[in-house]
Amino acid sequence: MSNTPISRFEPPRLAELPKDVAERIAKVQEKSGFVPNVFLALARRPDEFRAFFAYHDALMEKPGGLTKAEREMIVVATSGLNHCHYCVVAHGAILRIRAKNPLIADQVAINPRKADLTPREHAMLDFAVKVAERSHEIDDADYAALWDRGFTDDEAWDIAAIAAMFAMSNRLANAFSIRPNDEFHMMGREPRP
Amino acid sequence: MSNTPISRFEPPRLAELPKDVAERIAKVQEKSGFVPNVFLALARRPDEFRAFFAYHDALMEKPGGLTKAEREMIVVATSGLNHCHYCVVAHGAILRIRAKNPLIADQVAINPRKADLTPREHAMLDFAVKVAERSHEIDDADYAALWDRGFTDDEAWDIAAIAAMFAMSNRLANAFSIRPNDEFHMMGREPRP
Amino acid sequence: MSNTPISRFEPPRLAELPKDVAERIAKVQEKSGFVPNVFLALARRPDEFRAFFAYHDALMEKPGGLTKAEREMIVVATSGLNHCHYCVVAHGAILRIRAKNPLIADQVAINPRKADLTPREHAMLDFAVKVAERSHEIDDADYAALWDRGFTDDEAWDIAAIAAMFAMSNRLANAFSIRPNDEFHMMGREPRP
Amino acid sequence: MSNTPISRFEPPRLAELPKDVAERIAKVQEKSGFVPNVFLALARRPDEFRAFFAYHDALMEKPGGLTKAEREMIVVATSGLNHCHYCVVAHGAILRIRAKNPLIADQVAINPRKADLTPREHAMLDFAVKVAERSHEIDDADYAALWDRGFTDDEAWDIAAIAAMFAMSNRLANAFSIRPNDEFHMMGREPRP
Amino acid sequence: MSNTPISRFEPPRLAELPKDVAERIAKVQEKSGFVPNVFLALARRPDEFRAFFAYHDALMEKPGGLTKAEREMIVVATSGLNHCHYCVVAHGAILRIRAKNPLIADQVAINPRKADLTPREHAMLDFAVKVAERSHEIDDADYAALWDRGFTDDEAWDIAAIAAMFAMSNRLANAFSIRPNDEFHMMGREPRP
Amino acid sequence: MSNTPISRFEPPRLAELPKDVAERIAKVQEKSGFVPNVFLALARRPDEFRAFFAYHDALMEKPGGLTKAEREMIVVATSGLNHCHYCVVAHGAILRIRAKNPLIADQVAINPRKADLTPREHAMLDFAVKVAERSHEIDDADYAALWDRGFTDDEAWDIAAIAAMFAMSNRLANAFSIRPNDEFHMMGREPRP
Repeated sequence: MSNTPISRFEPPRLAELPKDVAERIAKVQEKSGFVPNVFLALARRPDEFRAFFAYHDALMEKPGGLTKAEREMIVVATSGLNHCHYCVVAHGAILRIRAKNPLIADQVAINPRKADLTPREHAMLDFAVKVAERSHEIDDADYAALWDRGFTDDEAWDIAAIAAMFAMSNRLANAFSIRPNDEFHMMGREPRP
Repeated sequence: MSNTPISRFEPPRLAELPKDVAERIAKVQEKSGFVPNVFLALARRPDEFRAFFAYHDALMEKPGGLTKAEREMIVVATSGLNHCHYCVVAHGAILRIRAKNPLIADQVAINPRKADLTPREHAMLDFAVKVAERSHEIDDADYAALWDRGFTDDEAWDIAAIAAMFAMSNRLANAFSIRPNDEFHMMGREPRP
Repeated sequence: MSNTPISRFEPPRLAELPKDVAERIAKVQEKSGFVPNVFLALARRPDEFRAFFAYHDALMEKPGGLTKAEREMIVVATSGLNHCHYCVVAHGAILRIRAKNPLIADQVAINPRKADLTPREHAMLDFAVKVAERSHEIDDADYAALWDRGFTDDEAWDIAAIAAMFAMSNRLANAFSIRPNDEFHMMGREPRP
Repeated sequence: MSNTPISRFEPPRLAELPKDVAERIAKVQEKSGFVPNVFLALARRPDEFRAFFAYHDALMEKPGGLTKAEREMIVVATSGLNHCHYCVVAHGAILRIRAKNPLIADQVAINPRKADLTPREHAMLDFAVKVAERSHEIDDADYAALWDRGFTDDEAWDIAAIAAMFAMSNRLANAFSIRPNDEFHMMGREPRP
Repeated sequence: MSNTPISRFEPPRLAELPKDVAERIAKVQEKSGFVPNVFLALARRPDEFRAFFAYHDALMEKPGGLTKAEREMIVVATSGLNHCHYCVVAHGAILRIRAKNPLIADQVAINPRKADLTPREHAMLDFAVKVAERSHEIDDADYAALWDRGFTDDEAWDIAAIAAMFAMSNRLANAFSIRPNDEFHMMGREPRP
Repeated sequence: MSNTPISRFEPPRLAELPKDVAERIAKVQEKSGFVPNVFLALARRPDEFRAFFAYHDALMEKPGGLTKAEREMIVVATSGLNHCHYCVVAHGAILRIRAKNPLIADQVAINPRKADLTPREHAMLDFAVKVAERSHEIDDADYAALWDRGFTDDEAWDIAAIAAMFAMSNRLANAFSIRPNDEFHMMGREPRP
């Protein structure tokens, strides 16, 4: 497998990257133990790399609001609908870890409706899926369904924005054939103690 | 019309914005003569605002490669398919100005296939539309069709990335009901001299 | 632009047209200041021309019932869904004039759900869109939704018949590549006094 | 069955119809042995009735060009896709008679691709189906495919126009729930001698 | 017509069939007066033949529960949606006979929503159609709609299982181009006494 | 997790099962180390159970022709498109084991086009996917594409039949909410030595 390219576009050499981009990559490598391929693939364009990860961090890492597991559920559910190999595998791994549940990512990626979710989580994913697939039809009733499950206005924004950002991310990974690192497939699959 | 809200989420007061966000808004106002509503709507979240416009500028304003008119064609064609009121109207105005063609935006938004385009432009939009609608099916043949029309690898990246970024942007504008400024509807419609 | 053909099929010479067809064309020219291309394109077949415009006039010009602006809204909304360049541009112009609203046509063509419409107008367009897209699923509940907004049985007939007639008209204009006259793009765009 | 209404809208009493409408109905009754329900249903609106049948006759009854069986094939194939109960049953009967083939209507209505058709007939129906379903994508290649099978420009117009007219007709019959006369189900089913 | 092959795959010679397969075929021939082509087509693979008809008989012939006419309605409605020529024609004939109604099969195949059905039958077909088209979205509400019309749990199973079995059967008949026997087209069309 | 029901329909008690059904279940338990839930769920109906597994074994276990890994690829690819939680998880495990490849099941389930497959395997899955999604459009060209990759007529039958059988199986598992055993998620994920 080691000879399969990580993307249709050749990634830059690490030594040639701008310092801030190289540091961001070093940081994720330290945290994960490997460099997720999307970092290498997008580093070919440093300005886009910076904007992409700034947007990602603003939505996925900010304190408060949705839990980190909830945010990853949104990513996995919408990436499954968009048939995005990279995002389902990589964010599926993160979801298993965040949710401390080795089964949840496969369930959510294949069919969120049949997943082991709370009614609150189902409402969140119904909204996210509509943003992914038919955003022009979103109306008051969709927001009301979130409020009924206790979501705030700002959490509604977060759900929509995460689904929108991965609409972009899925299309980039699909168009560029970005390949998920083999490591992701096994992460977080050990049964919970 | 002046009483219609510009977004489902109340925009922040200008006086309360971080300095860099306020400056970016002042700059676009100076250039356009008004503040496009998407700036106000997204300023509610300064970090996301910064990342969004950094990504936008990296793709839409960088020198070289696709012409600015070509980039706007991609935006208008894919936003039409996504039924995004804001992006079709606002970027339709920019397209008319960039292309110096008062008819082109309506044509591209309604049906790119019947628009007054060159074969090169048709190839570009065929690829962009596939990224917007079926990115998981993109394969070698899609890239080869671009090369046949003289596009480089880096231009192929740009087409995909612009279509992907507006997949996000369309979903934000649709989910938040961001309303285009009235001014956009008339811009660039005067016949070419 | 003046060299672009108005249709895939060469239009007849005016001098060769039957008298009643020529008179109908003269009449619309007098009223509009130019001959809308659909008249020239369809005049190639005088019998079909007569039937087409007789049907058009019976639905669009008859007194009473729906306002003329409402009828044009139906045309623009369904023609947008059918990606009909001719009908969106030409009837968009008429809608702006009839509704005395320079923004309404772009809104309705791109996404009727986000347009500045009354609940009555939304109900009308929901019904029209269902006739355009899934007429075999129309049932009692669809009619009841119209009655709830004060529409009569005969107005329900009109909504369905207008949507149906433009299902035909959109397909003719698309299959024949009928091009809207440049003049339509600018008509009715001046702000209301 | 005799108590089932022929349409959601009550048909007019024959005695109250304008003379020309009544005569058209008498003529079809004489020819068919019964009054097809679409005549009664549409007679509620004499002007629309006249235009509808003028259009119908201009396309379906004119001499030369496509055979009458070919024209009915177009109607049955596109009406099947539109799930139009009236048109499939009524025009299926006419197709069986015109084509002197008791099996052809069921084949064409269910799946034209598997019907006992010549390559020329398949090319004709491929074009008609594209007009019915995706007319905005029709391009030079679609016309070239017809020419390859010996169709003239005027026959291409006829195929498109018949498919377009029944796009309208199917939507009227569906929206109004027009019921086919029981007689149609059995017509033309006797094996060919 | 007699020279048209009954399937893309050549059927086996009857003399070469295993005894139990030959007996099953003899039995259906005795009952129907002819051998339905699906028996010959599938006999090419005796093990699959045995399993297929065992499954068929378990669902379609077992005593109790849904009436035989109800079961055939499910087959005809879902086979119509799947454009399966064989199943619509063959099971349409059986439905006409079982329901003692010469019109019902055409109605159900073209558009179940407009067919002469009871509310109970409509509920049954709504469920079956959802199994055929969007089974991953089936939820408690779909079962509740059946219970409201008096269906038992076991009858709900039967509806789902019949729709599922013909999802298979339609795909086999379509992929193998299995042709319905001419005899089916006329069966059960005589008016009820 | 142990309290989550394995199906919407209560499974029978093992002690009450017919002897042959109980033996089949004992056999799979011995082989796998646990009883896959589909066996328990379908055992509620012994006749359907027998036919279902007879069909399954005839297609999936017979000697010769497609390799067992190839057969499982067909199951996983089409079950992914049908959003069948049970079949993707259970057959994904079997595919990993048969193909001795811990990554292949996730790849094929999410997007067969981007999976690490040979051209022969891609041709096989293209055909299978068309059977699953648009079997009525299958024609000579689809068979020719298989022959070009060295498949025999009988292997073409197998591909179609497996895709068809899982069209049924996916709908049963979805409609009945059959839950995959937790064990499947981890099976075959250990890297190849």
